[in-house]
Amino acid sequence: MALAENRYGKSRVRVVRVKRHADRHEFREWMLEILLQGDFETCFTDGDNSKILPTDTMKNTVYSLARNSAATCMEEFGKEMVDFLLRRNPQVSHAEVKVWEKPWEQIVTAGKAHPTAFVQATGERATTKVERAQQGKFAIASGIENLVIMKTAQSGFEGYIQDSLTTLPPTADRLFGTALRANWKYSTPVVAFAAVRAKIRETLLQVFADHDSKSVQHTLYAMGEQVLKEIPEVSEISLTMPNLHCLLVDLSRFGQDNPNEIFVPTDEPHGTIEATLRRKA
Amino acid sequence: MALAENRYGKSRVRVVRVKRHADRHEFREWMLEILLQGDFETCFTDGDNSKILPTDTMKNTVYSLARNSAATCMEEFGKEMVDFLLRRNPQVSHAEVKVWEKPWEQIVTAGKAHPTAFVQATGERATTKVERAQQGKFAIASGIENLVIMKTAQSGFEGYIQDSLTTLPPTADRLFGTALRANWKYSTPVVAFAAVRAKIRETLLQVFADHDSKSVQHTLYAMGEQVLKEIPEVSEISLTMPNLHCLLVDLSRFGQDNPNEIFVPTDEPHGTIEATLRRKA
Amino acid sequence: MALAENRYGKSRVRVVRVKRHADRHEFREWMLEILLQGDFETCFTDGDNSKILPTDTMKNTVYSLARNSAATCMEEFGKEMVDFLLRRNPQVSHAEVKVWEKPWEQIVTAGKAHPTAFVQATGERATTKVERAQQGKFAIASGIENLVIMKTAQSGFEGYIQDSLTTLPPTADRLFGTALRANWKYSTPVVAFAAVRAKIRETLLQVFADHDSKSVQHTLYAMGEQVLKEIPEVSEISLTMPNLHCLLVDLSRFGQDNPNEIFVPTDEPHGTIEATLRRKA
Amino acid sequence: MALAENRYGKSRVRVVRVKRHADRHEFREWMLEILLQGDFETCFTDGDNSKILPTDTMKNTVYSLARNSAATCMEEFGKEMVDFLLRRNPQVSHAEVKVWEKPWEQIVTAGKAHPTAFVQATGERATTKVERAQQGKFAIASGIENLVIMKTAQSGFEGYIQDSLTTLPPTADRLFGTALRANWKYSTPVVAFAAVRAKIRETLLQVFADHDSKSVQHTLYAMGEQVLKEIPEVSEISLTMPNLHCLLVDLSRFGQDNPNEIFVPTDEPHGTIEATLRRKA
Repeated sequence: MALAENRYGKSRVRVVRVKRHADRHEFREWMLEILLQGDFETCFTDGDNSKILPTDTMKNTVYSLARNSAATCMEEFGKEMVDFLLRRNPQVSHAEVKVWEKPWEQIVTAGKAHPTAFVQATGERATTKVERAQQGKFAIASGIENLVIMKTAQSGFEGYIQDSLTTLPPTADRLFGTALRANWKYSTPVVAFAAVRAKIRETLLQVFADHDSKSVQHTLYAMGEQVLKEIPEVSEISLTMPNLHCLLVDLSRFGQDNPNEIFVPTDEPHGTIEATLRRKA
Repeated sequence: MALAENRYGKSRVRVVRVKRHADRHEFREWMLEILLQGDFETCFTDGDNSKILPTDTMKNTVYSLARNSAATCMEEFGKEMVDFLLRRNPQVSHAEVKVWEKPWEQIVTAGKAHPTAFVQATGERATTKVERAQQGKFAIASGIENLVIMKTAQSGFEGYIQDSLTTLPPTADRLFGTALRANWKYSTPVVAFAAVRAKIRETLLQVFADHDSKSVQHTLYAMGEQVLKEIPEVSEISLTMPNLHCLLVDLSRFGQDNPNEIFVPTDEPHGTIEATLRRKA
Repeated sequence: MALAENRYGKSRVRVVRVKRHADRHEFREWMLEILLQGDFETCFTDGDNSKILPTDTMKNTVYSLARNSAATCMEEFGKEMVDFLLRRNPQVSHAEVKVWEKPWEQIVTAGKAHPTAFVQATGERATTKVERAQQGKFAIASGIENLVIMKTAQSGFEGYIQDSLTTLPPTADRLFGTALRANWKYSTPVVAFAAVRAKIRETLLQVFADHDSKSVQHTLYAMGEQVLKEIPEVSEISLTMPNLHCLLVDLSRFGQDNPNEIFVPTDEPHGTIEATLRRKA
Repeated sequence: MALAENRYGKSRVRVVRVKRHADRHEFREWMLEILLQGDFETCFTDGDNSKILPTDTMKNTVYSLARNSAATCMEEFGKEMVDFLLRRNPQVSHAEVKVWEKPWEQIVTAGKAHPTAFVQATGERATTKVERAQQGKFAIASGIENLVIMKTAQSGFEGYIQDSLTTLPPTADRLFGTALRANWKYSTPVVAFAAVRAKIRETLLQVFADHDSKSVQHTLYAMGEQVLKEIPEVSEISLTMPNLHCLLVDLSRFGQDNPNEIFVPTDEPHGTIEATLRRKA
């Protein structure tokens, strides 16, 4: 036998940072995962821990670095974490830090944003994965998870294979809902991350809303294509779009019509569509 | 032995309604629970189903009524459901319909709201419970679930009991986060439900944000009191505010200070504070 | 306005106790919730914390008592907690402690139970709620949550109301699955809790398995009735039995029969059946 | 731009099969995911659905095949599904079917297993992934998810790196709990799947229970090594073992000792240890 691929680290490390400006506070909540690869074989085979940085220390590292960090976004903080871990641990050959951000927004009352009160705006998560080998270059991939969207027009599904097991009726007008997951790779580690993220998110939403959809695949491709067209820093983008079906209810059993108005939304089963779009070399 | 309290019905009935106006669509998603009480003893004791309206029929009722309903909010739809079930089922002595609404908002791109594309805005849920006995009056209680909020200023906790098991240090400046659940009873079944709900939500948020909090209890009371003061249609309000602790990290172990900036947010254990405020007779 | 019902406390306090016997270890995992009522009005109205036992101290109390406790079951530990809190806090008028137990069993390998290794056996939870007022008597209610069971014979549903919205076909042979929640009250606080719990659980399972079921209500009643008959310490029992439908798949569309063999299990919507059985006075 | 990797299919397809023998019933519950790759580019780029097998048809395929299938385990059913999909869809280059099995066991009452009543025994899941390219060979990887285990003896963690951010104290006696995920590849598609699975599970549990653990890595390796030693059909095994920490409570603040008896179990943060063991070529 032989030990093959292996890695270890700490997951679900949560941290809140409050920046206390004179006129308002900033509030950020992150969850991190740190994963290391390196010269750890004797730990597995002989119980030798002499090269092991405890995962508890990785957790402490998050808090200690967060105190001093000048990073204004999670991509920059990820770079600091990776650099710190690689510099202090020569036995580590490769370090990876993932971050999930919970979005908090200022509470708006009477039309004004409150300076020190916040509401968790959505179940959507912003993500990033920053990684680097010793002496290597940064690879940074950012993304969005659980962006739940729906369109009620310009969506059909027709012309597919009809066989002995087909029961789905073709339709030129169906609801199209998904919980979008997007992941894009940056071609460089120096990016205006927050601004680029905002533009990617807006582009994805705009194409989703406006596209004349023949299928989930068709719209997924159009969304990814537009991101590559508009954002030169992105070298590739992967999109996962579960098809969260809304089923038209048959009301004819009750002597009623249903002109595409009453649906049952379902969580399972669901379609799954995944694709990666990459710039041609 | 004797059969005492009992009820039955259908839970997690999900329905989507799309209203197709010329210039835009409306998109609503509800989950319903229907619960009936009545003359059902022989069903339990003898297996006699002759007075049982199947829960499958309750589900069908949701879809059939939704097609014809003029209700523009879930409270009005709940009233239609209760009336329909009581009228057709004399063996039912009391009917109750609960509704949870998932909030969907129009997607905004390039500063404009899209007419037929939507995003699920938040994990917050709007709720209502509509109930009535045969020949009785409606009782309607609406609410909010999972409104996740946080304040970073004007919050302390001091002057509490110190005993041999106390380890919590008093503080004049702590983070205060909660996932608010509110439930209010209407004194009348004829209310401008949507407008009143919006005003209650804004009032709760405003007091939470502005209050000089000595404890969760203190702020909870101020929030409920203000709702009763401002909204005459509300006869009582119950608030549940788990105290979702953000723990200050001790960085002195690493030779660093922590001027109330770096915290660990935790899900468990959490404080639980619940109270009802009622108008004096 | 006036403050009406209110209570506060600590939720999701988790504790593991390991008893290290010479020949084997005992491993127990509990989650607790402590809720107090009392003379707390000025805390709500004036921000006066002088009568407030911090919820953090309640958490510490769990750990401190657990170290010294001789309790061998969660009901006895709940009694110790309630007594301790009431004795040290005269401002508290009523204390309640709920406990959920995760079941761990010894790992069996090569036919032998291992003395110091354990497996989490099931998603079922044992529960209890112990409460008492100052100078009052204990009220103890124990229970079971999430006991997921299924019967494939002796279950039908026929003879129910047929109206214009009925689409469910009657059947003399259906699957009957549920996630049982049971709660029973003890008529006395001195009970052989573990032995009685085991007998109640066995009784519930036996009746469920053997009953010739005409409906969920019918079987629920038979289960509760048998518990009251066999266990004199139980004064009342409440059962909640969601009807977790398994839908027969229509295979005739593919030229196949389906002699009650292929089903789609579903989580939503589901029927909900609840009833309490109480000894006649 | 160019379309790169892509696939689509149906997720969370649930099916129950009841085999009605004269003396007892068999009850099986599976959840399936089907994923296809192939010549689908024009669907993405042009909205051409002519080569698309609808995901709804994949769902129907599960039910239709389940009716006629002689498969007695999910690995065999996965092979039937893959063969069926590839044979009828020449445009598909590669098909993959994943199955999760919920374990149901016969209810035992009065020491006897009931022939037609079942209990969902555990939160553990058995899994398999069966895949094949057109004209290719089967690749089958089976596994276990969420096997929650704990050991209270023979586990320590010492001798690790101590740096300026270390706060974890070394210990020769700690609790070691995990939710094991195992995945093993078969070197051949013809295996006595159920018997081999049982042996792998027993081997993993036995080593976990008996191992003198210097770290999670150390025990993980011993578990995987023993599987490869004892089960020749397995060519490699991957193990993921989150370290679900039980923290020793400091009771000295209350004047009490804590001889490794009272712990706080926590869900987050947690260590993550992953490794693959492969036979040497």
